Amino acid sequence: MYELLQTISGPEDVKKLSIDQLHTLSTEMREALFNRLTKIGGHFGPNFGMVEAEIAMHYVFDSPKDKFVFDVSHQAYPHKMLTGRWQGYVDDAHFVEDSGYTNPNESEHDFFNVGHTSTSITLALGLAKARDLKGTEENIVAVIGDGSLSGGQAMAGLNVAGEMHSNFIILVNDNEMAIAETHGGLYKSLQDLRISKGTSPNNIFKTLGLDYIYEENGNDVESMIAVLTKVKDIDHPIVVHIHTQKGKGYAFAEQNKEAWHWCMPFDRKTGLPTVDFGPEENYLTLTQNYILDKAKMDPEFIVITPAMPGAIGLQPEQRAQLKDQYLDTGISEEAAVSIASGVARNGGKPLVITNMTFLQRAYDQISQDICINNSPVTMVMNFSSFDGLTDVTHLGIFGLSTFINIPNLVVLAPTCQEEYQTMLDWSVNQTEDPILILIPGNGLTHRAVDTNYVDLKYRIEQQGEKIAILALGDFYQKGQELAQAIENEFGFQPTLINPRIASSVDEDLLENLQINHELIITLEDGVLDGGFGEKISRFYGAKPMKVKNYGLQKVFYDRYDPAKLLEELGMTTPQIIEEIKQMI
Amino acid sequence: MYELLQTISGPEDVKKLSIDQLHTLSTEMREALFNRLTKIGGHFGPNFGMVEAEIAMHYVFDSPKDKFVFDVSHQAYPHKMLTGRWQGYVDDAHFVEDSGYTNPNESEHDFFNVGHTSTSITLALGLAKARDLKGTEENIVAVIGDGSLSGGQAMAGLNVAGEMHSNFIILVNDNEMAIAETHGGLYKSLQDLRISKGTSPNNIFKTLGLDYIYEENGNDVESMIAVLTKVKDIDHPIVVHIHTQKGKGYAFAEQNKEAWHWCMPFDRKTGLPTVDFGPEENYLTLTQNYILDKAKMDPEFIVITPAMPGAIGLQPEQRAQLKDQYLDTGISEEAAVSIASGVARNGGKPLVITNMTFLQRAYDQISQDICINNSPVTMVMNFSSFDGLTDVTHLGIFGLSTFINIPNLVVLAPTCQEEYQTMLDWSVNQTEDPILILIPGNGLTHRAVDTNYVDLKYRIEQQGEKIAILALGDFYQKGQELAQAIENEFGFQPTLINPRIASSVDEDLLENLQINHELIITLEDGVLDGGFGEKISRFYGAKPMKVKNYGLQKVFYDRYDPAKLLEELGMTTPQIIEEIKQMI
Repeated sequence: MYELLQTISGPEDVKKLSIDQLHTLSTEMREALFNRLTKIGGHFGPNFGMVEAEIAMHYVFDSPKDKFVFDVSHQAYPHKMLTGRWQGYVDDAHFVEDSGYTNPNESEHDFFNVGHTSTSITLALGLAKARDLKGTEENIVAVIGDGSLSGGQAMAGLNVAGEMHSNFIILVNDNEMAIAETHGGLYKSLQDLRISKGTSPNNIFKTLGLDYIYEENGNDVESMIAVLTKVKDIDHPIVVHIHTQKGKGYAFAEQNKEAWHWCMPFDRKTGLPTVDFGPEENYLTLTQNYILDKAKMDPEFIVITPAMPGAIGLQPEQRAQLKDQYLDTGISEEAAVSIASGVARNGGKPLVITNMTFLQRAYDQISQDICINNSPVTMVMNFSSFDGLTDVTHLGIFGLSTFINIPNLVVLAPTCQEEYQTMLDWSVNQTEDPILILIPGNGLTHRAVDTNYVDLKYRIEQQGEKIAILALGDFYQKGQELAQAIENEFGFQPTLINPRIASSVDEDLLENLQINHELIITLEDGVLDGGFGEKISRFYGAKPMKVKNYGLQKVFYDRYDPAKLLEELGMTTPQIIEEIKQMI
Repeated sequence: MYELLQTISGPEDVKKLSIDQLHTLSTEMREALFNRLTKIGGHFGPNFGMVEAEIAMHYVFDSPKDKFVFDVSHQAYPHKMLTGRWQGYVDDAHFVEDSGYTNPNESEHDFFNVGHTSTSITLALGLAKARDLKGTEENIVAVIGDGSLSGGQAMAGLNVAGEMHSNFIILVNDNEMAIAETHGGLYKSLQDLRISKGTSPNNIFKTLGLDYIYEENGNDVESMIAVLTKVKDIDHPIVVHIHTQKGKGYAFAEQNKEAWHWCMPFDRKTGLPTVDFGPEENYLTLTQNYILDKAKMDPEFIVITPAMPGAIGLQPEQRAQLKDQYLDTGISEEAAVSIASGVARNGGKPLVITNMTFLQRAYDQISQDICINNSPVTMVMNFSSFDGLTDVTHLGIFGLSTFINIPNLVVLAPTCQEEYQTMLDWSVNQTEDPILILIPGNGLTHRAVDTNYVDLKYRIEQQGEKIAILALGDFYQKGQELAQAIENEFGFQPTLINPRIASSVDEDLLENLQINHELIITLEDGVLDGGFGEKISRFYGAKPMKVKNYGLQKVFYDRYDPAKLLEELGMTTPQIIEEIKQMI
């Protein structure tokens, strides 16, 4: 089944093959993709669309002397198979060895860990600049999808590239899609270029000072070899604009490109997932329902996303229903939050949605455009928890400490469905503060909650003595468990507090705790450095109160088991109980 | 002298004037600019170049119903004069009332506090989007300079604008300059457009889906009135590309545009500053000298800046001397740090320079492109201190807490000239870690220092007892002063520690302090939230050690007096001594 693929220990073996054999190789590689993706899921459409292009890249260029940088690197599976890592696709026992993104620890053919978009051009420019300083002569190739071009960093990279005077090849993989449909004026130009087979004068790349060549048959290995041979060893920067089909080779994926950008394990015959999606109602469906209802009732309400409607599972038909109350800014978090500030400033009610890991791209815009101006923007972030995305490039665990230290920004950490819903609606309708809401990572739970957030205070959920537990957001349930364990172990009831507001210190409440407590325990779903707990430690620093902060370390964890990680960090309830014995 | 200007209480008064009177008004406004700028300094070139355009804007449009957003807003002085704020220019006693940037607290004609570049298009898009949701019909005008277009956020904004179907006017003020010369491929296109009077097919704005009109005479009020009248109430987005002369009306500024972007108080006849620049040798000259020497000796060394060579005062002739060892990425911090990561990954030695306030724009790229990849990039930041830029949009006080919580990033806080120089050279040459160095804000001081940073440990500079002072970076001298005051007041010598590394906790050293200390005092030149001191508080949280953190509050301070602020925060030495009396 993988006769040719199994002979490929590196690019040198690709170069030995005939064109016919390369065709066979592409078929085997798609089979290998099916093998991995039906069983463990992953990025589908980008990889199926780039098989031929990446075979041609390794046929024409000499990696790793010639250097490839893949944008987001979620289309790099074919490259990985051709650089000695095919076992991670054909052999279930080896799946775990392959990270799903480029990874210098895996191979000398990978130069960066990459998982955020629009960075390949600038990263590759750096490689090229160093090459020129050193006086070597390799080819540098940046691969980028049409969707990623809408990111400001990609456009800034094209602009810098436009001033270069040495070899630099930008391979634009145009499959007419981001994860969802593309958005922005530039996509009309790309369409013009496709229709005119690259001859339209309306050429964004040329306006940025770049040479340009078009190849319609991006899924034909011979055509790709021809065009790449033409640009190899070129002495100036050039854009190679290729047209490919996202999801090429699987009918379901060719037809529904958005749904098949990324897949769960699935049945190849039916295209249906083979794993349980979890309960039908969850935080994302709650958010979708809120958005649709609110938009109907309130014409000033608008949802803004940097190309991530999927962050809350907002489907194409729901987006269509929202009409002008839905704005996709392309893959630009910077634009999304800055536009949201403008909307709020002119009386609209903007709700920004994406995944936590991507929001940090708009750190400056949140600080300057939103918070200095105190614009009442609501941002709702999915995957804010350690128990979410675990790839090193997609961690949500830095969100808390990244954002709670920006003045004026109110970071809300709801603990259950009821609190989430009331916080969301309250936030969208208030006109005082910029608000960031963390979607809990531990699934829907139910509680009776106090819905008064106006004074932004912590809430005592259980009044006790000696020990007070401040259990933030989706670690509230861990706080409940710990409170019960303390009562069982030590025979007294501790105080349990739901801080609700992660970004401020409720000084009155903390003052009062000194009356009948000797130990404060903070629990937070994020790194401790710069986080919530440290503020509590600072508050009590010179007072006779012991404080112990539990949370994650300042580390780029990669593909961890969440339960095991908690244990390694000494954060299970029995471990904390043991530590308490030393402290009281 | 200001006969007409004094009659302008708002835009309605501009509309009453004849064209001849508008000419006179422009002359009076330049005189008013001279009055303010010769006496207190400020942004010179951008404002002298935009007098006529902003008169025309207020003549044609109806502000504040029609809404203007000025990029960076350092060209908004004429707008401010025409919206009731001329006294801030003609009357010395009123200077202080005018912030030098747009400011909603000053006027209903200003919609945002703005001080970072490339945001006007997206902010204005938000205003326009809210307008469309509400169904009103005002004009929305974003003003942006050609330099700012190189910022990714501006290009992403143009891309989003390209999909709009309602009124939106982007006034591109092309004066052929950023602060320094412009950089990037797009500037060749802008030149083509200028030369062809807007008819070149090589049109970046059209490739992004936008309508376009060119006006050569941006410094002629009649021409500007004509072109703005043409686009007023337009029903779709359009770029109005105008050509102006930066520094128009003052020969020195017309000739040396970079030097006159911003000015100190100066003598109008000679163009020479009337205030002392401080000592000839300072941290910036040290950095310049290091760069020039290092570049000569080491061909793999490169200086990269996002259009801010002025951050360390790097002059045009010095840049020319550096040749290919100097890279200006345009106003894109994202591109600068991402390229630096690529350079480091391919064996080069990149040094990134800019002001601290701007670095946060590259937060995500520092985290993902540099730190996940552990690329040995050195970033040297000026104005990292509370005692530097005091405009709310340019504060350096958030830098520490923003960056010390990113894994793998080593933040170095030197305390004197000797430490700064050895840290800088060590950092550039090492190949292990990404490094951020904070340029001290308190002027050159000299000390004998230990130059071994390899183990990244804190250093005990004075071994004492009872109280240990951890005085970080340029607050080290305050630590020295406090140590002496403690000895004088309490009769014992405290321990004085120079942490040197702001981003990690030296646990062994802190453990040992417990032997003969009861109080730890931390001093840091930044906000406490997420900062250095909180990590020390966390370390000792459950231990019987008192900790008191001194630093700034999580507040957007604006135009403060540094000395007064310290006193308000209780951070003078006598105030700390009084607090110590309560704690020991």
